[in-house]
Amino acid sequence: MAMRELLHAVRAGRITEADALERLRHLPFEDLGFAKVDHHRSLRQGFAEVVFGRGKTPQQVVKIVRAMLARRDSRHNILVTRADRRIHAAVRRLSRAAKFHPLSGAIVIERGRAVRGKGTILVVSAGTSDIPVAEEALVSARALGNRAESIYDVGVAGLHRLLGHRDQLTAARVIICVAGMEGALPSVVAGLVSAPVIAVPTSIGYGASFGGVAALLAMLNSCASNVSVVNIDNGFGAACVASCINRI
Amino acid sequence: MAMRELLHAVRAGRITEADALERLRHLPFEDLGFAKVDHHRSLRQGFAEVVFGRGKTPQQVVKIVRAMLARRDSRHNILVTRADRRIHAAVRRLSRAAKFHPLSGAIVIERGRAVRGKGTILVVSAGTSDIPVAEEALVSARALGNRAESIYDVGVAGLHRLLGHRDQLTAARVIICVAGMEGALPSVVAGLVSAPVIAVPTSIGYGASFGGVAALLAMLNSCASNVSVVNIDNGFGAACVASCINRI
Amino acid sequence: MAMRELLHAVRAGRITEADALERLRHLPFEDLGFAKVDHHRSLRQGFAEVVFGRGKTPQQVVKIVRAMLARRDSRHNILVTRADRRIHAAVRRLSRAAKFHPLSGAIVIERGRAVRGKGTILVVSAGTSDIPVAEEALVSARALGNRAESIYDVGVAGLHRLLGHRDQLTAARVIICVAGMEGALPSVVAGLVSAPVIAVPTSIGYGASFGGVAALLAMLNSCASNVSVVNIDNGFGAACVASCINRI
Amino acid sequence: MAMRELLHAVRAGRITEADALERLRHLPFEDLGFAKVDHHRSLRQGFAEVVFGRGKTPQQVVKIVRAMLARRDSRHNILVTRADRRIHAAVRRLSRAAKFHPLSGAIVIERGRAVRGKGTILVVSAGTSDIPVAEEALVSARALGNRAESIYDVGVAGLHRLLGHRDQLTAARVIICVAGMEGALPSVVAGLVSAPVIAVPTSIGYGASFGGVAALLAMLNSCASNVSVVNIDNGFGAACVASCINRI
Amino acid sequence: MAMRELLHAVRAGRITEADALERLRHLPFEDLGFAKVDHHRSLRQGFAEVVFGRGKTPQQVVKIVRAMLARRDSRHNILVTRADRRIHAAVRRLSRAAKFHPLSGAIVIERGRAVRGKGTILVVSAGTSDIPVAEEALVSARALGNRAESIYDVGVAGLHRLLGHRDQLTAARVIICVAGMEGALPSVVAGLVSAPVIAVPTSIGYGASFGGVAALLAMLNSCASNVSVVNIDNGFGAACVASCINRI
Amino acid sequence: MAMRELLHAVRAGRITEADALERLRHLPFEDLGFAKVDHHRSLRQGFAEVVFGRGKTPQQVVKIVRAMLARRDSRHNILVTRADRRIHAAVRRLSRAAKFHPLSGAIVIERGRAVRGKGTILVVSAGTSDIPVAEEALVSARALGNRAESIYDVGVAGLHRLLGHRDQLTAARVIICVAGMEGALPSVVAGLVSAPVIAVPTSIGYGASFGGVAALLAMLNSCASNVSVVNIDNGFGAACVASCINRI
Amino acid sequence: MAMRELLHAVRAGRITEADALERLRHLPFEDLGFAKVDHHRSLRQGFAEVVFGRGKTPQQVVKIVRAMLARRDSRHNILVTRADRRIHAAVRRLSRAAKFHPLSGAIVIERGRAVRGKGTILVVSAGTSDIPVAEEALVSARALGNRAESIYDVGVAGLHRLLGHRDQLTAARVIICVAGMEGALPSVVAGLVSAPVIAVPTSIGYGASFGGVAALLAMLNSCASNVSVVNIDNGFGAACVASCINRI
Amino acid sequence: MAMRELLHAVRAGRITEADALERLRHLPFEDLGFAKVDHHRSLRQGFAEVVFGRGKTPQQVVKIVRAMLARRDSRHNILVTRADRRIHAAVRRLSRAAKFHPLSGAIVIERGRAVRGKGTILVVSAGTSDIPVAEEALVSARALGNRAESIYDVGVAGLHRLLGHRDQLTAARVIICVAGMEGALPSVVAGLVSAPVIAVPTSIGYGASFGGVAALLAMLNSCASNVSVVNIDNGFGAACVASCINRI
Repeated sequence: MAMRELLHAVRAGRITEADALERLRHLPFEDLGFAKVDHHRSLRQGFAEVVFGRGKTPQQVVKIVRAMLARRDSRHNILVTRADRRIHAAVRRLSRAAKFHPLSGAIVIERGRAVRGKGTILVVSAGTSDIPVAEEALVSARALGNRAESIYDVGVAGLHRLLGHRDQLTAARVIICVAGMEGALPSVVAGLVSAPVIAVPTSIGYGASFGGVAALLAMLNSCASNVSVVNIDNGFGAACVASCINRI
Repeated sequence: MAMRELLHAVRAGRITEADALERLRHLPFEDLGFAKVDHHRSLRQGFAEVVFGRGKTPQQVVKIVRAMLARRDSRHNILVTRADRRIHAAVRRLSRAAKFHPLSGAIVIERGRAVRGKGTILVVSAGTSDIPVAEEALVSARALGNRAESIYDVGVAGLHRLLGHRDQLTAARVIICVAGMEGALPSVVAGLVSAPVIAVPTSIGYGASFGGVAALLAMLNSCASNVSVVNIDNGFGAACVASCINRI
Repeated sequence: MAMRELLHAVRAGRITEADALERLRHLPFEDLGFAKVDHHRSLRQGFAEVVFGRGKTPQQVVKIVRAMLARRDSRHNILVTRADRRIHAAVRRLSRAAKFHPLSGAIVIERGRAVRGKGTILVVSAGTSDIPVAEEALVSARALGNRAESIYDVGVAGLHRLLGHRDQLTAARVIICVAGMEGALPSVVAGLVSAPVIAVPTSIGYGASFGGVAALLAMLNSCASNVSVVNIDNGFGAACVASCINRI
Repeated sequence: MAMRELLHAVRAGRITEADALERLRHLPFEDLGFAKVDHHRSLRQGFAEVVFGRGKTPQQVVKIVRAMLARRDSRHNILVTRADRRIHAAVRRLSRAAKFHPLSGAIVIERGRAVRGKGTILVVSAGTSDIPVAEEALVSARALGNRAESIYDVGVAGLHRLLGHRDQLTAARVIICVAGMEGALPSVVAGLVSAPVIAVPTSIGYGASFGGVAALLAMLNSCASNVSVVNIDNGFGAACVASCINRI
Repeated sequence: MAMRELLHAVRAGRITEADALERLRHLPFEDLGFAKVDHHRSLRQGFAEVVFGRGKTPQQVVKIVRAMLARRDSRHNILVTRADRRIHAAVRRLSRAAKFHPLSGAIVIERGRAVRGKGTILVVSAGTSDIPVAEEALVSARALGNRAESIYDVGVAGLHRLLGHRDQLTAARVIICVAGMEGALPSVVAGLVSAPVIAVPTSIGYGASFGGVAALLAMLNSCASNVSVVNIDNGFGAACVASCINRI
Repeated sequence: MAMRELLHAVRAGRITEADALERLRHLPFEDLGFAKVDHHRSLRQGFAEVVFGRGKTPQQVVKIVRAMLARRDSRHNILVTRADRRIHAAVRRLSRAAKFHPLSGAIVIERGRAVRGKGTILVVSAGTSDIPVAEEALVSARALGNRAESIYDVGVAGLHRLLGHRDQLTAARVIICVAGMEGALPSVVAGLVSAPVIAVPTSIGYGASFGGVAALLAMLNSCASNVSVVNIDNGFGAACVASCINRI
Repeated sequence: MAMRELLHAVRAGRITEADALERLRHLPFEDLGFAKVDHHRSLRQGFAEVVFGRGKTPQQVVKIVRAMLARRDSRHNILVTRADRRIHAAVRRLSRAAKFHPLSGAIVIERGRAVRGKGTILVVSAGTSDIPVAEEALVSARALGNRAESIYDVGVAGLHRLLGHRDQLTAARVIICVAGMEGALPSVVAGLVSAPVIAVPTSIGYGASFGGVAALLAMLNSCASNVSVVNIDNGFGAACVASCINRI
Repeated sequence: MAMRELLHAVRAGRITEADALERLRHLPFEDLGFAKVDHHRSLRQGFAEVVFGRGKTPQQVVKIVRAMLARRDSRHNILVTRADRRIHAAVRRLSRAAKFHPLSGAIVIERGRAVRGKGTILVVSAGTSDIPVAEEALVSARALGNRAESIYDVGVAGLHRLLGHRDQLTAARVIICVAGMEGALPSVVAGLVSAPVIAVPTSIGYGASFGGVAALLAMLNSCASNVSVVNIDNGFGAACVASCINRI
């Protein structure tokens, strides 16, 4: 490592202090101790290696995934989000283990089954049309090393369906709550539990839903005190936040 | 009446048909049969005579109310909305019966107790800060000739409080549902009843509530099928719609 | 039913009170008396079984409709909204009775002709381009068990056309008013009648119509007191609200 | 005038052509023939000299008006918009002729009665709360040298009142139509006449009127073909446009 | 005509005055004198018969135009806006006179050359990409019976080009000013003339032009006093307003 | 408790099973097992009892706090948010322990010092004007039973200041990151740590900060994967979410 | 030149001063000395001749570029922005030198290598998806006669990567900073340098990025004092501003 | 300096290389070479020391300014922005040299007259109501060590006034262009010069100016290629950017 050698040269008297000082100033940053930062970063996010598939060609994704697979001793799962069948076909030629989740477009290559999260992440969603985003959250949460379960189709206009899942709600360590339209589900769910609730607005709806803005605003204004919010349709992001909470 | 006299003159041969035709074209509209329209209008809204108090001086309100009181045989209640104590003091000098509702600023002079609405209008609201709008709806609904009740402080983050009022909810013929912040209450309430629900967003909240826009959008996107919406803070308007439904 | 058996076991002394209490706490919600809620729900909406067609494949719609048709003793009409010719072709193979309304994309399989609504629902629209939304409202209102009529192409810039329909307007029990662009029609119509008016903004227009926002805002700010509003393009929702009002 | 002298010097041989060319390039713009532009400008707007009163102290307004009055042979009316009683008191000390219009805050000092407009400008407004803007338009139109009349309180929810003024509407050469809330009046008025209609949205309203945006959007989306729009609350601007049309 | 006959029957004593009164109340509106309104409408807009082509099939347009052509003695031009080559090919089979303007998609069938407008309408536009909207305004203005000219590509960042057209600007009776992006052209043009300026924002631009909103807002806030505004991209509407002004 | 007595009466044969069933259906909800829900709620939020001070008179706050203090055996801290000096003076007469935090307007009456949170909550803020919101978060986090520290004035335009606090950042279990203007701080902070980051936009700024919307949008679009967001200025809400995470 | 001849005729006595004055008033503007303005314009922007390719057919672009190439002695580079492969193929037939940059769609025909800019323009971008806009800025800056370099993929959530480029950042005379999502990069970069930073928001992102609005607002609210902003995705515009600064 | 001593200790053998490495990792950031960054920062902004006065009490400002004045050898000017007369009175007691600019609220204590900027910064503004922001830019530019001039009241609707200042415009090295309402001035000015133009939208206007948003959008969409934009009303920020450009 560059800095160690520099210090060694100083001690050995091979370079002056002034020269060493000057070199230190101009070393690439990571050589100055912040490699640690980078290391933290890979530690933090590294339970899965992630490729954002949208806008990439199958060839581009294949190239990235091949590089990931080349690190053969890695136990990191590989997750491709927002892919399609063509990307999956291409990735599958690289690895038989590549599993496609067609609703969300997620591809997972499982390389390790270690569970790092301490509890269960529960993904709750309102309408059937919210399921793609919910599935992205669910698949991502698992790929990131968590136990994760889901409850779908429990809208606030039919409370009894939601209330029938009380035990599952109470048992979760973190809840991801996915809803479009009026975005009311996180407030209702958060009122029933003491776990943190990550709310994900979806762009489902039409007219005055404004591509998810209605749901987003509702969630930001939630009257429940254990709700925080991520971007519209950001199922993967919610899984990251939930996973990060589930590991502490 | 002008038209009757005109027809009489035609019959009597005092004016020609062509002249009559010409005059008919230029008579003020109400003389041509649309007085009926006007009459409908007064029939419809006339259970109460209404003054919008905001932006008016006590003197201006007094002048209008005095004219209303001058029609001594009228059984119409008089309702002043968005007034203040100074306006109330001035109105009270005109009529001892003027009752002030300080939270909403509504003043009512009751002149008849006839109930025209067929059932009960129930006003449901979420937070304590929504009560001014809810009270405006409640007082207005009563002034317009309806039985009206209220349930306050039943937010969606504490469902058990709302669910404890099931009977009252089920018994209502029309429900006015007042909510700020995330505006989720109408969806939840509408899922519990078969009555029409009039949703009123309130401007309560801060930050991304944008003066009631968050609640308004949530209500327009309600997943419940028996919800329609009126303007932000429009408790009086909700009472008018509810009253109109309650009379059919 | 679970609760009845539990009470029986208590009386019979087969389980203790404490045990019964504990079990009650953990019974699925619907077993505690809220099945009634669900029943209400089906009673309320059940005059038609509804499938939202947009975003579904013909196969998915066929699967749902087949399950609906399997309940052979049901007199509920089946309504598929926002479908296309391919979906209709597929549904028609299930039932010869499936009728397609091409402007709105609605498919109706009529299984009962009982009229539950007490009066007539009148659908009024402004421009020819608003007709798809108006037709969705009309077809839905009928499928939900109401007498329903329509008046199309009566814009506010040509008042005489609207005023020529006074009798029909006056006779309606509920009016659905569909308009894009400046969204002025509901205010004018509501001023001519005493019935409740459900306003539906449409996304018709360009430039500063902002996909229906201009019409939506106009309707929320209506100076008429018997207007409430549903979401942009939500003809089906307006029919649900109108139907709900028409049955009380 | 500079250019004339320059040409004279060229002819007299006192300066060379090249020098003249250079000087021409650097003369102040108005000396190069564009004074005409300026002249046009004063011709166009000059039937009244205008001071925008809002944000100015009485002293500032007095100073400007005194300078205007100093041109004693001018027949231009002086118009101060958005003033208050204190400004009026101060201006009145300069000129007994200063007349205050308290609803709009306009002050007019009439110095000529010549009517330059060819026809009548009619100001139509919907609600009583729109009257300040309507009055600003009316007073401004007169100060700018036009015959101007007004019809107030003819909202679209009570058509018979508007229709009763057909003759006056038909007789106007230009119509200024002032409306807040849903902003529907210009569409209805424009459908009844063949004159150009200048629509002025007002900031009157609350909630989803968004300070006049709802009315503005409605007017921009008018289905009538003879409507153009000016800024929210811009009664003076509407009078300028109308006056400009009325003079051609 | 119904009313005339009714009056005749009254005079003849065939029906009583009371009966006549009752019938008058229920006659269709147009029979009561408002046919005149309709007549006004056709007088006003009738110099051209107009079809909005967008969203219509060639067959639908052909059907409407054929009906227009069937009135063989009409001298009204026929204008189809926002059409394409397929529509033009279909219309051309009906009439050899159908002329296509490919930039704007306008089709004109000229049937009369009478000029009703008193002066010249000048269409000024800023960028080459604004030309489609400008051309729609130009072609529409001519089809509506006006002399119309155009000046294209005179943006505010190259003033000398605009200033080079001073004479043409000064000579126009009405100016239509078309601009996208920052929408500054109408302010500059209006400062050079005394004619009314109709500003048309276009949706040209990207990013923070927000589909023409930037230009629309700039025009509504113009510091020039002779500017009024129509909807984004509404070249036809601007031509209607200009034509309406040009005829008074 | 009602349910227990009911079961006892069933066993004793004092009421029939059918009657018991009926009564169960109509008991207040909390008697049916959902008191547990309520209990959960108090467990969750109950480490502090909270009063939202804004919009309340000193008298109203005093009344609520007196009731809280009446439960003498409670170890719950009492927190009044968004109060002012007058409210503090009034509350201080009830309890000498009432401590006022003037920047945020928070009042705390400490009644227990138990720390329930497992780690440290770190509050980081960018500008000095964000400190009121940051202080609300800090004081609230402590009142809710957490160890909490703060780092103020570490904006992204002077990175070295932020980077100087690396150890404190790395040591925190949950981070609350408060920023106005461009709202970039949470992205930068989250890139340095593996803890969950709760981002709080503030309404600080002017012009295009739109009362905190710019910061809110930046935070929702954070490129860091461990960021979730609460409402603008909602320091208290961020503390609740952080506290909820810190306890799991 | 017209003006020179006019002056000559004046001196020669061939026309009177008055006539000359009149003609001067009506000469085309450029003849009055403002050709200089135009000259300035070509001087300013003329280091490259630019065609905006989007929305143009290959034929249209070819026609414009051929005209540019016809001026054979010009040393101006030719830049076509937002082109595609078909346009490039067509342009390449005109000039073998036409080089295509596929990410940004820029085509450059280099005709001169003179560097007019005094220092280096550095283009910095955050995510890989921002590269098309960054490349447009880079290619444009070079075509406009500047030395230009780039640093890609240095997002704020991984500071060490950015900090590793300190020397390059410090050495730049002007920096163009391209970022989507939360748009935080310009603030961080500007805090590290003393050069002016031109911030370019990109439309990259989804949900609440609103097509680049989130990044735009962040940049306008930058806490760094050396940041100014251009339109969303306007890489070319940023290069123009940077080039203009780099030449002074 | 810490790092130098550390290196010395290494060379002297007083600490091991490993220990030195560890300490380096944990030294405060500025000790690692980034003090240079900080130094750059003070170099860059340090020609004036700046206090943002709004929201601060006179006492707070006095405390900060006293600390600044304590560095007696500093030649840095002291600038307080957005102050009021009370703040000025308090600051004046500290230093007789404190000069107040009442329109913008800026206070300057001049301590050095060195001019660091290479050319002249010209501040151009449109309306009289934009002057406060223009003055803030002017005063700030001078306090930051630049020659600065101003041209006020040159709106685009009266071009001749602007064109009369051509020489001054051409002579400026950087132009700050301040405009509210339609924000067109920067486009017109930038078309006349080759210098960089910093556009500052102001919140002046009403109705659809939306607090400066109309002007901001116009400026971002400027068709001139040498315009970049700062936040609404940010005269000080524009001066910083201009000053930064003027020094390179």
